[in-house]
Amino acid sequence: MNDDDPASFRRIVRSGEFCGPTNGICRGFVQCNLYVIRRADAYDFLLFCQRNKKACPLVEVCEVGSAFPQSVGKDVDLRTDIPKYSIYQNGNLVKEVTDVTDDWPTDSVAFLIGCSFTCEGALLDAGIHLRSIEQNKNVPMYKTNIQCRPAGALSGNMVVSMKPIKAVDVALEVQITSRFPQAHGGPVCVGCPSAIGINDIMNPDWGESVNMQPDEIPVFHACGVTPQNILM
Amino acid sequence: MNDDDPASFRRIVRSGEFCGPTNGICRGFVQCNLYVIRRADAYDFLLFCQRNKKACPLVEVCEVGSAFPQSVGKDVDLRTDIPKYSIYQNGNLVKEVTDVTDDWPTDSVAFLIGCSFTCEGALLDAGIHLRSIEQNKNVPMYKTNIQCRPAGALSGNMVVSMKPIKAVDVALEVQITSRFPQAHGGPVCVGCPSAIGINDIMNPDWGESVNMQPDEIPVFHACGVTPQNILM
Repeated sequence: MNDDDPASFRRIVRSGEFCGPTNGICRGFVQCNLYVIRRADAYDFLLFCQRNKKACPLVEVCEVGSAFPQSVGKDVDLRTDIPKYSIYQNGNLVKEVTDVTDDWPTDSVAFLIGCSFTCEGALLDAGIHLRSIEQNKNVPMYKTNIQCRPAGALSGNMVVSMKPIKAVDVALEVQITSRFPQAHGGPVCVGCPSAIGINDIMNPDWGESVNMQPDEIPVFHACGVTPQNILM
Repeated sequence: MNDDDPASFRRIVRSGEFCGPTNGICRGFVQCNLYVIRRADAYDFLLFCQRNKKACPLVEVCEVGSAFPQSVGKDVDLRTDIPKYSIYQNGNLVKEVTDVTDDWPTDSVAFLIGCSFTCEGALLDAGIHLRSIEQNKNVPMYKTNIQCRPAGALSGNMVVSMKPIKAVDVALEVQITSRFPQAHGGPVCVGCPSAIGINDIMNPDWGESVNMQPDEIPVFHACGVTPQNILM
């Protein structure tokens, strides 16, 4: 699989060959989370993103009904180029599919929210090990007690992702990720999971747990799964 | 005491009224460690600083025999304007004094090495609490297992200072201190004291220990006391 070039990778996803998490893929390129929201709720969602940029950095907002973002990539079709889609109705997960061509709503707006996977290439280039990639796992994600600023009907707490980072590499990790504000920027917490309401680091709310070494501490970044937690 | 204005503060020190550590004083201004080295050893020392910029960022090197730096402050006399001097001979501490006018060697070179106290104003302005200042203590400093790059006869390990920082403020601390390369820049270790060879955080090699809160982790910065450790 050619997972270095975004156009090639999108074609692989479009064909249905790949439906996993995308950490470790297309290093050095921007990655995003996709949210498709009814037009009636889109203003609240847009305002929520504006007020909670750390968790919800907006990379692109499509025209109503459009699956074709203008500012990210060429020949992108959001109905087929995402590995997996979760379809919710009234806050309940209805189905998970790998193609939403038949389900794409004409009265909705597609939002692309930056993802911390965007920073992976720069972190790896700097010699920082990324456990989840090494172990071929999705990153662990956790609900926190960090309150987002409400917008209209939307309110709730931030979700964070976690990376174990060597204590002597933490400064470098912060310096690098701080350069990517559209991918959640620097961490919201370093060490002390309980400081943000995480009681069991080995039991994430999404993704897969990773083991910690004695010379590592957990580094928590705001996560694009936050709106999913809010909307549910 | 006017401890906001460097010129006023230097006059207070010169008068002998103040001989303590200078953290928390003259916020927003550059602070330095002073080393006065025999001319015969000055090349090795200069090279050591060049090769170990993180621990020994050189702010100023005076002319041989001069106690008057050209690039930092007006009306500065290094023989009287430092709160306390330790005089070493053959690696042994001979005496500690508050004025070295009568001891100043004419065959030596004065080096001013940046100090992490320089960052305190910016950290406090950002709302980060600094325990040592709050408790009116000197910062705790530790020998580490981080090897400096040798230069001539000079070799040994880095010394670090420690600040307890709230886990949710660590990224901000790194972002701010990284902007001050002449004051040791970002931390060399965050959490995991044992990762750099520190076994007992409550037992520093220099300075005074400070207590840690459950939502804080230790943040270690390279320290200008490193040459003292090397020279001894």
